[in-house]
Amino acid sequence: MNDSPEYLEKKRFFDSVITLYGRNVAVEVLRDDAVQIHKLHLSKSNRIDETIEEILALAEMRGIEIKYHTKESLSRISKNSAQDQGVAIDVVSQNYRSASNIATDLPSSFRLLALDGINNPQNLGMIVRSAAASKIDGIVLPRRNSTKLSPLVMKASAGTLFKIPIYYCEDLSEILGIKDTAIITLSSHAKDDIHTLKIPSRAIFVLGNETEGVSDAVMRASTHSVSIPMYRGVESLNVAVTAGIVSFLP
Amino acid sequence: MNDSPEYLEKKRFFDSVITLYGRNVAVEVLRDDAVQIHKLHLSKSNRIDETIEEILALAEMRGIEIKYHTKESLSRISKNSAQDQGVAIDVVSQNYRSASNIATDLPSSFRLLALDGINNPQNLGMIVRSAAASKIDGIVLPRRNSTKLSPLVMKASAGTLFKIPIYYCEDLSEILGIKDTAIITLSSHAKDDIHTLKIPSRAIFVLGNETEGVSDAVMRASTHSVSIPMYRGVESLNVAVTAGIVSFLP
Repeated sequence: MNDSPEYLEKKRFFDSVITLYGRNVAVEVLRDDAVQIHKLHLSKSNRIDETIEEILALAEMRGIEIKYHTKESLSRISKNSAQDQGVAIDVVSQNYRSASNIATDLPSSFRLLALDGINNPQNLGMIVRSAAASKIDGIVLPRRNSTKLSPLVMKASAGTLFKIPIYYCEDLSEILGIKDTAIITLSSHAKDDIHTLKIPSRAIFVLGNETEGVSDAVMRASTHSVSIPMYRGVESLNVAVTAGIVSFLP
Repeated sequence: MNDSPEYLEKKRFFDSVITLYGRNVAVEVLRDDAVQIHKLHLSKSNRIDETIEEILALAEMRGIEIKYHTKESLSRISKNSAQDQGVAIDVVSQNYRSASNIATDLPSSFRLLALDGINNPQNLGMIVRSAAASKIDGIVLPRRNSTKLSPLVMKASAGTLFKIPIYYCEDLSEILGIKDTAIITLSSHAKDDIHTLKIPSRAIFVLGNETEGVSDAVMRASTHSVSIPMYRGVESLNVAVTAGIVSFLP
């Protein structure tokens, strides 16, 4: 393993790059001076229309490097040939970090929201928005079995995607062993009421998949399992609503 | 005004009819024995496919009256010719009631959620789901300047649309004068924190439009104005998330 300072610096940099795609998304992030941009990628096959012209003008104004690709290699960058519209853009967010930083990043007391298998991009965007608006210290987002950060997520986040730390990992198992930290799973079957839980000073709340709930592996590793009591025979809440309630717990 | 017992009986009945449309919606409500159905309306021009066959079989099994219409008159019933797919269905819900019943329906202490200009059907469906799952006693839904109960609302409500009283009115002004009842508007500009508000025993929380907030007329009539304190410069929450937080206030 290379651990020279330059290598680590570079790794830290590339770890914080999020590649988004789509013409309107490119315009949105290029317009927002608060969003740092590494590179703009365009397909050589793009027909020049008003939006592409605006993208080019904004990139030039901000001095952002533009790389041209074949349609095929652009889709390898965007990883979504169906929706990239010939445009991909590397955003650098200091808030997008590997979960291995959690223990050193955070103060002695913190609350995180970990997402276990959230597949709906609109829900993910709404969760980011609620968490960003609350005192939650960050979101843990596994790459496996989860929707990815994408233009749909960005839209539903209503401009908050880069405002809150998002700790990514391959799999939630990576964060289950953080020292002195409670793993609190939300489950409609749990007997304990979330509103009467005395929340430990270091807590990770885990929200499960919209249909299947929290996965077995996480359930086994959890230190607490709580529910939001429900009435009228309703079995579950939308996961973004649950995230909102958890984010704004006193 | 005719106020004979039969007339009032009939009026009460028709007041509680919600006309939905679309083939999958018809299958869903016909399959659910808990949903009372008044009539099924079909366009004569419908090509008989598997779904129509299932609709016909379910209606026959449940002994539901079927009326056939021209395409034009069916679209006058569905009020949505673009999406009715030649099928409309009258659902009778005892929970769908005129807001004029609020004062007599409800116990001496209650909490309602009134929606002021919610235009997104997915948000409305999620709000219904959260309110139905909570102790909220009902939702007040004006017809003016609001999305209507529709298949999209039904889908987002995840099967909860008929579980909670929905009080309809033309305009929210109709409910602003209910005796001894607090009108509590949610506003991101309000200085008082919703979490420290001592909620009066009879309370109507008013949630505003996704972009413009609560309308001026309602704002003037409100007895309390509160906000959910937000951080990181985030200006607002998704209205369905706000509704979830309000619904589950202790």
